[in-house]
Amino acid sequence: MSDIVRSRPKEIPHNEKLLSLKFESLDYDNSENQLFLEEERRMSHMGFRCLEITRWVICGLIGFLTGLIACMIDIAVEKLAGYKYLAVKQNIEKYTELGGLSISLILWAVLNSAFVMLGSLAVAFLEPIAAGSGIPQIKCFLNGVKIPRVVRLKTLVIKVFGVICSVAGGLAVGKEGPMIHSGAVVAAGVSQGRSTSLKKDFKIFEYFRRDTEKRDFVSAGAAAGVSAAFGAPVGGVLFSLEEGASFWNQLLTWRIFFASMVSTFTLNFFLSIYHGKPGQLSSPGLINFGRFDSDVSSVFIVFRGVLGALFNIINYWLTIFRIRYIHRPCLQVMEAMLVAAVTATVSFAMIYFSNDCQPLGQDNTEEYPLQLFCADGEYNSMATAFFNTPERSVRSLFHNPPGTYNPVTLGVFTLAYFALAVWTYGLTVSAGVFIPSLLIGAAWGRLFGILLSFIASSQSIWADPGKYALIGAAAQLGGIVRMTLSLTVILVEATGNVTYGFPIMLVLMTAKIVGDYFIEGLYDVHIKLQSVPFLHWDAPPTSHWLTAREVMSSPVTCFNRVEKVGRIVDVLSNTSTNHNGFPVVSDTTENDEPGKICGLILRSQLIVLLKHKVFVERASSRLSQRKLQLKDFRDAYPRFPPIQSIHVSQDERECMMDLTEFMNPTPYTVPQETSLPRVFKLFRALGLRHLVVVDNENRVVGLVTRKDLARYHVGKDGLEELHLAQT
Amino acid sequence: MSDIVRSRPKEIPHNEKLLSLKFESLDYDNSENQLFLEEERRMSHMGFRCLEITRWVICGLIGFLTGLIACMIDIAVEKLAGYKYLAVKQNIEKYTELGGLSISLILWAVLNSAFVMLGSLAVAFLEPIAAGSGIPQIKCFLNGVKIPRVVRLKTLVIKVFGVICSVAGGLAVGKEGPMIHSGAVVAAGVSQGRSTSLKKDFKIFEYFRRDTEKRDFVSAGAAAGVSAAFGAPVGGVLFSLEEGASFWNQLLTWRIFFASMVSTFTLNFFLSIYHGKPGQLSSPGLINFGRFDSDVSSVFIVFRGVLGALFNIINYWLTIFRIRYIHRPCLQVMEAMLVAAVTATVSFAMIYFSNDCQPLGQDNTEEYPLQLFCADGEYNSMATAFFNTPERSVRSLFHNPPGTYNPVTLGVFTLAYFALAVWTYGLTVSAGVFIPSLLIGAAWGRLFGILLSFIASSQSIWADPGKYALIGAAAQLGGIVRMTLSLTVILVEATGNVTYGFPIMLVLMTAKIVGDYFIEGLYDVHIKLQSVPFLHWDAPPTSHWLTAREVMSSPVTCFNRVEKVGRIVDVLSNTSTNHNGFPVVSDTTENDEPGKICGLILRSQLIVLLKHKVFVERASSRLSQRKLQLKDFRDAYPRFPPIQSIHVSQDERECMMDLTEFMNPTPYTVPQETSLPRVFKLFRALGLRHLVVVDNENRVVGLVTRKDLARYHVGKDGLEELHLAQT
Repeated sequence: MSDIVRSRPKEIPHNEKLLSLKFESLDYDNSENQLFLEEERRMSHMGFRCLEITRWVICGLIGFLTGLIACMIDIAVEKLAGYKYLAVKQNIEKYTELGGLSISLILWAVLNSAFVMLGSLAVAFLEPIAAGSGIPQIKCFLNGVKIPRVVRLKTLVIKVFGVICSVAGGLAVGKEGPMIHSGAVVAAGVSQGRSTSLKKDFKIFEYFRRDTEKRDFVSAGAAAGVSAAFGAPVGGVLFSLEEGASFWNQLLTWRIFFASMVSTFTLNFFLSIYHGKPGQLSSPGLINFGRFDSDVSSVFIVFRGVLGALFNIINYWLTIFRIRYIHRPCLQVMEAMLVAAVTATVSFAMIYFSNDCQPLGQDNTEEYPLQLFCADGEYNSMATAFFNTPERSVRSLFHNPPGTYNPVTLGVFTLAYFALAVWTYGLTVSAGVFIPSLLIGAAWGRLFGILLSFIASSQSIWADPGKYALIGAAAQLGGIVRMTLSLTVILVEATGNVTYGFPIMLVLMTAKIVGDYFIEGLYDVHIKLQSVPFLHWDAPPTSHWLTAREVMSSPVTCFNRVEKVGRIVDVLSNTSTNHNGFPVVSDTTENDEPGKICGLILRSQLIVLLKHKVFVERASSRLSQRKLQLKDFRDAYPRFPPIQSIHVSQDERECMMDLTEFMNPTPYTVPQETSLPRVFKLFRALGLRHLVVVDNENRVVGLVTRKDLARYHVGKDGLEELHLAQT
Repeated sequence: MSDIVRSRPKEIPHNEKLLSLKFESLDYDNSENQLFLEEERRMSHMGFRCLEITRWVICGLIGFLTGLIACMIDIAVEKLAGYKYLAVKQNIEKYTELGGLSISLILWAVLNSAFVMLGSLAVAFLEPIAAGSGIPQIKCFLNGVKIPRVVRLKTLVIKVFGVICSVAGGLAVGKEGPMIHSGAVVAAGVSQGRSTSLKKDFKIFEYFRRDTEKRDFVSAGAAAGVSAAFGAPVGGVLFSLEEGASFWNQLLTWRIFFASMVSTFTLNFFLSIYHGKPGQLSSPGLINFGRFDSDVSSVFIVFRGVLGALFNIINYWLTIFRIRYIHRPCLQVMEAMLVAAVTATVSFAMIYFSNDCQPLGQDNTEEYPLQLFCADGEYNSMATAFFNTPERSVRSLFHNPPGTYNPVTLGVFTLAYFALAVWTYGLTVSAGVFIPSLLIGAAWGRLFGILLSFIASSQSIWADPGKYALIGAAAQLGGIVRMTLSLTVILVEATGNVTYGFPIMLVLMTAKIVGDYFIEGLYDVHIKLQSVPFLHWDAPPTSHWLTAREVMSSPVTCFNRVEKVGRIVDVLSNTSTNHNGFPVVSDTTENDEPGKICGLILRSQLIVLLKHKVFVERASSRLSQRKLQLKDFRDAYPRFPPIQSIHVSQDERECMMDLTEFMNPTPYTVPQETSLPRVFKLFRALGLRHLVVVDNENRVVGLVTRKDLARYHVGKDGLEELHLAQT
């Protein structure tokens, strides 16, 4: 997230009571102008059916590619981490005898820092938007906020590279969050049938080149990402819906579901080939919790979300610190390297000072058991937690038999890892927070289970601390990200056992309620810190006092149906207003009265019109040279050129432009007296970008945009208003 | 469903190309009139928080009561069916030796018919709406169609009684579908804080007495019903969303989820007490498939949904036949009894003529093994399928070890049960189609599995036909009801094993695609046959040709801001139009021009105004005697008196009524040129009842209602228009 931050002026102290004017909105309402209607009317019933089939094909492709990427990340991380741990292990074994383990420590720290440096360099210098998990950005995208460069091919490449480096570099991060971002980028790319970065247009899927269609595919991509990350297709669909969609459409849901299925199947298929067991399909996701088989129906201990809230609060202060002081790319890279080195050091120290030796059993899942100072046939149990990728550590905590871990070891580990994870989230590396949260939760859950079994040692039902680890992991993750429905399904799908569903639900609900008392979810905290105009589900409940009249921006710059080119260019070039939508009013502009609304035209449409010089010569009335087509608009989408790049001569400035064909003739309007919740509902349900406020006579009196609505929120003393800032 | 049918004139040949004008709409858009706004503005932030807590409490109550009802049904059915089977079993055992099994047959048939008669009598004569599963009606309710009497207390009582009778009567039905309806009724009752039937008003929850809030609770109730029926809380939420909600709201979803959780927990808790194992919580739902433990990751045989479509087609013709010829309650009761007797006879014949004896093992789940003509220590395997409640039969098919069933037995059983189930669905009894579908599917799935194991007997992976039974059950149910996402989750939660998720998904998708090729889902077929103006998710794709001008009803009866009482009474009494919403226009009515829109008022509001005689005396201008409050409207909700019951004297007819305070001053409007898909989207997304069409000058030119939109649908030759009928 530090990416968005970087592009803001450094001197302005960051404040979440601001709302940035920097972010544009996406338009999830089709502009139904004449060109569009003509095209739709030309299309036969068969045509629409083909379109529908194409949508399914695209969703299949999205799922397939997302699954492939997940597979690639997984294999790369496993290989690299394997080499690293092998090297360090051999080194440690060598120096345990000789004395001089500090050399091993340095080797470990250097290896970690080197990996992290590579990843951090790429992210900080090439594509800052690729930092973090990308989930807040995707949430914003689906909400309707345009985050620049978030779904570009370059972002995807850097993201994948970055996540491989940071996980292999031993940071307290997971590779699951970035998969969601990756899936979304794949979706945005595939559905458009071209890559603007590579300057390659396949001339397919042109119909889908608009925000409305793109959003649907991006939802599918995000779902496919979740599905690949956790092997949870239903959870993926729910994630997309819980975080993104506002208008639920059954057909769309099925397509999203299909993409999720294909994604998990692809990952499964290729990983099974890689592991030499083709057709076994036993790795449904990037993380595999292993199967929980036994019955846990009576575990109803409800853990609190307090630790989750604590995580968010500390990270919140840390992020503010970062925004203020660490904004130069090289500083960011250095911080990332520092964290990597510290992680290695802390891990090493913990392993070194822990005397917790456990016998080396046959059924242990450890891949790199470290003997260190233990007797032969024993291994250091702290090392199983640290000397491993976090995914494996989580699995060990869930499944290792009772007695594997010493309570003190676990307690110290939890504290240390908590501190590391808080520090790590928000670094300029691509990484997710899911797995670290699970790991922290699993560790203290298991600790709690062990303590409980000391107290009530008679009852066999309290015996398996692995179950407490699972519940603890759910509570911690729920306390941090505050998703309930989708997270329940994801965890149930990942554990492969429905019986845990009920305790997980209870725990997540409790974690959410407790956590919300202190602070919002981590993603929401970060979104707020970026001053993104994010629209929540409902208007603040106490906002019935406000009406459209108070909320709207006014006065509005309007155009006439037939407008002078010079005026259009002047209005578009005016950087002080920088409006994106302009109501079109009927002819009378001579008197000062605002005209009657007859349409709405967007900046992007005007730019295309200017570029193609669709002018009506003054003499030859109303006959333009070449008929502009919908295709011309689609070709320019989504990177419309700025007005400065379009040259309009002095003669041309005197020409007129007829907007009738291109404007949306039926924009949604509301009267001035409409209450804010009503305006909000209309705006949110239909995914609007501009809502025209009219008076009794249908004259334009104002325009409501996303920022006008996002401004109001419920604070401690009731309704508060955020300030708009140019940052 | 035959309930809705009954109330229609019998002589009109039924036609699904009609759209009935009989059905009113619900209004899911708040009427934000002055009274409402004043109340909202008076409320503090604390007040809204209390309201939110109240919502959670109500959802908890809904879940609790729904769980209790499910528990009651389950225990009653088990007891009654137990007595019945025991009696018949003893009788059969007695007469197997003596000869004279026809007496047993008669006993069985009479017992069945008696049970069914009771249930059918109650349904046919007391509350016809309680017939069937109730799912189509709840779908309609959530869609915004007012189905009379569907959420009344009486309906609930009859429904519960009916379902106990019909399941105990041995019909090929399940008790799961009706649970969804029951949950919805509970929700509608609890959330209103009163029962109009019992004339008891608890004076609580008055804030929730309007369609918008009620719908939210009914969604929660339906979800709680699914959750109790299948032990599938997440599936319940998804069902509500897939079938009902159009505007997805995160907070609402969490409340629905909570209701589902409470419901399954309650059922679980009380059933575990009933079974003498308190605290074990091992019966999460009414149906319990037992746990599938082994791995099935390679079962990818995709079954087709053809059989499901066949079911729907036959049932479609049968329903038409019933609508035409069997519309008298006594005929309906007789048909139900006939079916019950035939079911007993067919079952008996099948058991009698099958020579499929199986050794009586220790691990069999049969509760009533029938020896009949088998050797000692053996039992008749056909009897396990017929001599049992369908839930148990399904479980046997899933879990009995390979070799339990003879392929011929299974084949004959499938055919016979298929015929019975098709005949049964649509009878005037309360019953669901889920379990019969599962049973048919399980039988032929197992049959398929057995045949496959004959062919590929070498591979051990094909060995367990129980898995094929599960897949077959999913395919059959999917082919009949055509839900994908929610059904996947329901089945996964019911089987308790996520590994089956992927094959189930594939099968459901395929079943849906194949089935849709032939005919719609069963519920949609029945909704269509009732000519309900049901709004689908999107407008037909080829409907861009149409604009609001063509679609709207015109001319519109408008009222003035201050209108003569006489005119209002006359308009409301006019049975030929029977409008429910009236645009209010500004004063000028002298000229023939339509006036400018300034509000919208509903028939129900006008009725309340007339009842309370809120008239402005001609002399004392604009001073009504008593200030009407929102409470007066809420007290009358939802059964507003008809206009005929309100007496207005000749003097009063000359008075005036000021509508300003009571009308919705900001109704949504669209210009005449708006395309149908755009109108549809606005209407559907916001759950509107009336949408005013205005011209350039904001003058009312038409009104779009649900019927105007539901009229258009995609037929074989493109867009078709349904005819409106007064039926």
